[in-house]
Amino acid sequence: MGCVQSFRELCDRQKNTNVRLSLPAVCIVWQTAMIILFGVFIRYNEESDAHWIEHRKAKNISSDIENDFYFRYPSFQDVHVMIFVGFGFLMTFLKRYSFGAVGFNFLIAAFGLQWALLMQGWFHSLDYTDGKIKIGIENLINADFCVAGCLIAYGAVLGKVSPVQLLVLTLFGITLFAVEEYIILNLIHARDAGGSMVIHTFGGYYGLAISWMLYRPNLDQSSRLQGSVYHSDVFAMIGTLFLWMFWPSFNSAITDHGDGQHRAAINTYLALASTVLTTMAVSSLFQKHGKLDMVHIQNSTLAGGVAVGTAAEFMLMPYGSLIVGFCCGIVSTLGYIYLTPFMEKHLKIQDTCGIHNLHAMPGVIGGIVGAITAAAATESVYGPEGLINTFDFVGDFKDMVPTQQGGHQAAGICVAICFGVGGGIIVGCILRLPIWGDPADDNCFDDEPYWELPDDEEMSV
Amino acid sequence: MGCVQSFRELCDRQKNTNVRLSLPAVCIVWQTAMIILFGVFIRYNEESDAHWIEHRKAKNISSDIENDFYFRYPSFQDVHVMIFVGFGFLMTFLKRYSFGAVGFNFLIAAFGLQWALLMQGWFHSLDYTDGKIKIGIENLINADFCVAGCLIAYGAVLGKVSPVQLLVLTLFGITLFAVEEYIILNLIHARDAGGSMVIHTFGGYYGLAISWMLYRPNLDQSSRLQGSVYHSDVFAMIGTLFLWMFWPSFNSAITDHGDGQHRAAINTYLALASTVLTTMAVSSLFQKHGKLDMVHIQNSTLAGGVAVGTAAEFMLMPYGSLIVGFCCGIVSTLGYIYLTPFMEKHLKIQDTCGIHNLHAMPGVIGGIVGAITAAAATESVYGPEGLINTFDFVGDFKDMVPTQQGGHQAAGICVAICFGVGGGIIVGCILRLPIWGDPADDNCFDDEPYWELPDDEEMSV
Amino acid sequence: MGCVQSFRELCDRQKNTNVRLSLPAVCIVWQTAMIILFGVFIRYNEESDAHWIEHRKAKNISSDIENDFYFRYPSFQDVHVMIFVGFGFLMTFLKRYSFGAVGFNFLIAAFGLQWALLMQGWFHSLDYTDGKIKIGIENLINADFCVAGCLIAYGAVLGKVSPVQLLVLTLFGITLFAVEEYIILNLIHARDAGGSMVIHTFGGYYGLAISWMLYRPNLDQSSRLQGSVYHSDVFAMIGTLFLWMFWPSFNSAITDHGDGQHRAAINTYLALASTVLTTMAVSSLFQKHGKLDMVHIQNSTLAGGVAVGTAAEFMLMPYGSLIVGFCCGIVSTLGYIYLTPFMEKHLKIQDTCGIHNLHAMPGVIGGIVGAITAAAATESVYGPEGLINTFDFVGDFKDMVPTQQGGHQAAGICVAICFGVGGGIIVGCILRLPIWGDPADDNCFDDEPYWELPDDEEMSV
Repeated sequence: MGCVQSFRELCDRQKNTNVRLSLPAVCIVWQTAMIILFGVFIRYNEESDAHWIEHRKAKNISSDIENDFYFRYPSFQDVHVMIFVGFGFLMTFLKRYSFGAVGFNFLIAAFGLQWALLMQGWFHSLDYTDGKIKIGIENLINADFCVAGCLIAYGAVLGKVSPVQLLVLTLFGITLFAVEEYIILNLIHARDAGGSMVIHTFGGYYGLAISWMLYRPNLDQSSRLQGSVYHSDVFAMIGTLFLWMFWPSFNSAITDHGDGQHRAAINTYLALASTVLTTMAVSSLFQKHGKLDMVHIQNSTLAGGVAVGTAAEFMLMPYGSLIVGFCCGIVSTLGYIYLTPFMEKHLKIQDTCGIHNLHAMPGVIGGIVGAITAAAATESVYGPEGLINTFDFVGDFKDMVPTQQGGHQAAGICVAICFGVGGGIIVGCILRLPIWGDPADDNCFDDEPYWELPDDEEMSV
Repeated sequence: MGCVQSFRELCDRQKNTNVRLSLPAVCIVWQTAMIILFGVFIRYNEESDAHWIEHRKAKNISSDIENDFYFRYPSFQDVHVMIFVGFGFLMTFLKRYSFGAVGFNFLIAAFGLQWALLMQGWFHSLDYTDGKIKIGIENLINADFCVAGCLIAYGAVLGKVSPVQLLVLTLFGITLFAVEEYIILNLIHARDAGGSMVIHTFGGYYGLAISWMLYRPNLDQSSRLQGSVYHSDVFAMIGTLFLWMFWPSFNSAITDHGDGQHRAAINTYLALASTVLTTMAVSSLFQKHGKLDMVHIQNSTLAGGVAVGTAAEFMLMPYGSLIVGFCCGIVSTLGYIYLTPFMEKHLKIQDTCGIHNLHAMPGVIGGIVGAITAAAATESVYGPEGLINTFDFVGDFKDMVPTQQGGHQAAGICVAICFGVGGGIIVGCILRLPIWGDPADDNCFDDEPYWELPDDEEMSV
Repeated sequence: MGCVQSFRELCDRQKNTNVRLSLPAVCIVWQTAMIILFGVFIRYNEESDAHWIEHRKAKNISSDIENDFYFRYPSFQDVHVMIFVGFGFLMTFLKRYSFGAVGFNFLIAAFGLQWALLMQGWFHSLDYTDGKIKIGIENLINADFCVAGCLIAYGAVLGKVSPVQLLVLTLFGITLFAVEEYIILNLIHARDAGGSMVIHTFGGYYGLAISWMLYRPNLDQSSRLQGSVYHSDVFAMIGTLFLWMFWPSFNSAITDHGDGQHRAAINTYLALASTVLTTMAVSSLFQKHGKLDMVHIQNSTLAGGVAVGTAAEFMLMPYGSLIVGFCCGIVSTLGYIYLTPFMEKHLKIQDTCGIHNLHAMPGVIGGIVGAITAAAATESVYGPEGLINTFDFVGDFKDMVPTQQGGHQAAGICVAICFGVGGGIIVGCILRLPIWGDPADDNCFDDEPYWELPDDEEMSV
């Protein structure tokens, strides 16, 4: 670590946060590349193309309401709100980093979803007859999901990186995500409707590994800005609540039509309700005078939604959902109380938003819950057709049995962690190059380097 | 009242707001009980169970889109937003009680909806073949509705109670609600799609009766905290607008498929639009210099949605909806100007959010409008099948006629008021026990007793 | 202009902002008129009437899910959020005009939508058999659209007019809108699903012309209030994000069932993503030190949604959407940097929110994109039935060809501009009468004249 240390000092000496050339250059070049790649590769699929009317008649589909748009669009819009308002406002809790929280979240989400459409399209929606990716509403949802992984990672480095670094983080994050997702869902044939493994475990460890690589030993120089103020905590609750309310849509957005979406929504609704109670309990119990801590309410109340992601479409049973939520509220809140300080002090991982407690740990728990629930599936609970349907035991996998599926699910967790940690270390190395315009230690958690601020600012801190 | 007075003084002497033991204990015990009861009683219904695919074929249902999920999920999500963001942010108007408003609203809603699923399930969704409650999307909506009654009651005692008291209020509130709802909808056979009676009248009087029982003669000791600040009023408008916008979904969420949902949404949309204009008019007219008062805009603009709740699914006609909204905007705003101060001074009812003007009065008006509209229904307006459909004149009630239905509706109002007032008095007695950790008079409307506050707080008040 | 000048000075001399008589009078009289007109003219249509069940059987419609409600209600609710939260909060950026932004937006939207239902109903939904307007969910969406035009115009005069002036602006705006829309859509047979021409071009120029007529040479007297503060910029981002996220619903809300709605959502999603990147790029490039300007992020990121409005339902292709968004992000941001100051200085147009950059210019671009895309349509791309379907080549227009359609689209742009500019000048004249209670120059951008403000206000400015 000696050479790492000296390399780090070298980088720190000269901090120039002017992104006047790099940010526009990356945005314009990238957007131009997207236009070209979309021109070459992306077309409407048969449900969004004007030929739909002929397709409908040919396939004998009785009504326009059978178009996948009507099955998934309400869920898509809810997911969209989670990505932009949910993640964006959740990170506004810092007293002086609200512009960066909402604004950079906006930037990297808009940037990432285009690349996600391409990357995921190549793996999942490529029409081999003409070499085009055919997109519809499900692709938009998946692109939003893909972006979520990077926004989770942003939570770990919030306030410590430049927008250009975030674009690099997103570019590689989306790429890794698409590969990891393909391996887990298609090659390993694990199921992961709500993305406990694919999104949260990957995104969490990706962010933590990057934060570890970008460790700042003198971050206490900006400690005056690391807290919240009263109004910024209320803004953050907007993010929390929209995430919490729409999580049932997140976990059910791409599950099977009919009972699949229905069940996933119910399970998530219940798990989240349960989490709120145990989060409040632990928050009060471990604080002197029994006072509640807004950090816990803002974050740990969401852990149940993460942890029920994989199993939401399974026959987890309503009480099963409550149990998952119960445990995650406790684990996540204890994580904020004990683990986050421990990780910062002893593991040199500075995790601004505590994504380890909100995404990484609950994600792994969700993967395990999914593996157990899958392994325990029986034909009597699911019905013969229901079992095939739910676990997609068709094609190459038509001879699989639930216990096998449980093993595959477990393998999925490992892949997600490996991609997260490995990818994060590599990307973290790249982000340490002294060319990205990141802020100095005493300039962290401050909107000032990257935003024109209104005049009131000096007064309010 | 002499003994009541001395009992009250006894309670007030020693105020300990430390909920470090009681809050976690109630949460954990309750959540554990929920897990056990859900394990014993709650299962998926046929539309959310993995057997759906077989059920669908057996029942000859042509498509997954016929699953009730697709009829109701968008409305459910809107209702969900109303419960958590709508009610939560509406109460953030106080300058220093935003954490309590949003946070405790979150807590009791998550707590209440689980109990509501059980209570309502026993009355409405019990499958007698196996003794299980079978839940689907409609149960989730009803659970949210049930919770709304308690959140309304919270509005009356906002800032004056501890979180443990709120949990007790909710526990009993949900129980009373489920019984009252069963009596009104099933025994009396009144219709109440948007819950003017069942939710708003009950919730309003329940909260007012509790507030009356918890009367604090020296509440002016915390009068410095009873007002709003500029930003807290803007936060409250987030709540107002989400309630206002999604109220058509609230009133149409559980009405009949097809024209029922369609008509309920239209009627609510129109009633609310009309209310905004008369609220603004009265607010300006009764204020010196004609200035508008944010309290009225935040609250009275919603009264039309409450008052059209019962009749929204009937053939109220678009102009009928406008008339209802017109009257309620005036009544509700005048209530804020004259009734709330009167009630505080002469009736010893301290109603923090003015729920009497927003929920109780408009709820009763809504019940009356519903009774009149039902009594005036004719076959020529509804069509023979439409009449049976709308008023559910089937089974035991197949010989009912509209005038009878009008009487039943009127009976429903009385039941709601009785349950609200009676239940509130009993629960108010319980809440006066000196064991719940409620704040002292000079500590009301302050987040400080129950929340870890960021450092800025001293400055901003 | 000499006489205009002296007339203006006459008006300015005596400013009385007391609207205690005028505002209530207008609201009550107007609402009463609405009730009467609704009573005479407006009824439920066959999908929202209780006769639906009989209609359904007669028409052999297999399921309630075929009711238009289920095709459009989720989009309607998204549009509703855009109108009330989106437009309302977008305008809260001023440090001391948040009540006016959200509150007056609320007032005029609720006021306008009723008049819009009548005006648009007479043109589009009149049932000639009984002389009644029959309304359903599509009418509610169109009423919201119609209101959007006036809210855009409000953006130009934000902070400089009284609520009574806004009601007048809205009354005439809705009337002009309905006529203009009828000419463009029915007589000219242009297509304009997302309203680039009908809503944004019209609304933009309408507002700019009014602002020009109400030019205030001494507006710098209130320059201390023209900026934002930190928290007001965060509030404005709530508006921005809800507009941005739900714009796909806006552009797809009234397009054809099936592929039409599906494609419009995809195109809008892509155009908006692209706009974010180029907006950020230009904002950083043209600011010293490369810092981002919140004004651009709040507004220009939305330009792509405006510009793709007309063509969203066409086969614009995913890369086409990206190109439109790419250009609009640049044009709109440059507009804020160069055009807005130029217009204020040299053209005497004071455009508070910069609606020229967000609505007028992108609207015209959208009209042009629509014309080109329509003219370039071919049967091979759309399919024979798809072409007829998309461009509605039926009835009187069954012999039209795409190139003709392109010409009609171009004619539509001209009509929208003419109605906007012409109508704005006339309405501007009316609004200059010294009877409307508008604020003095040093009282602009201040909530104080029209709102009861909490005590903290003096401190926070």
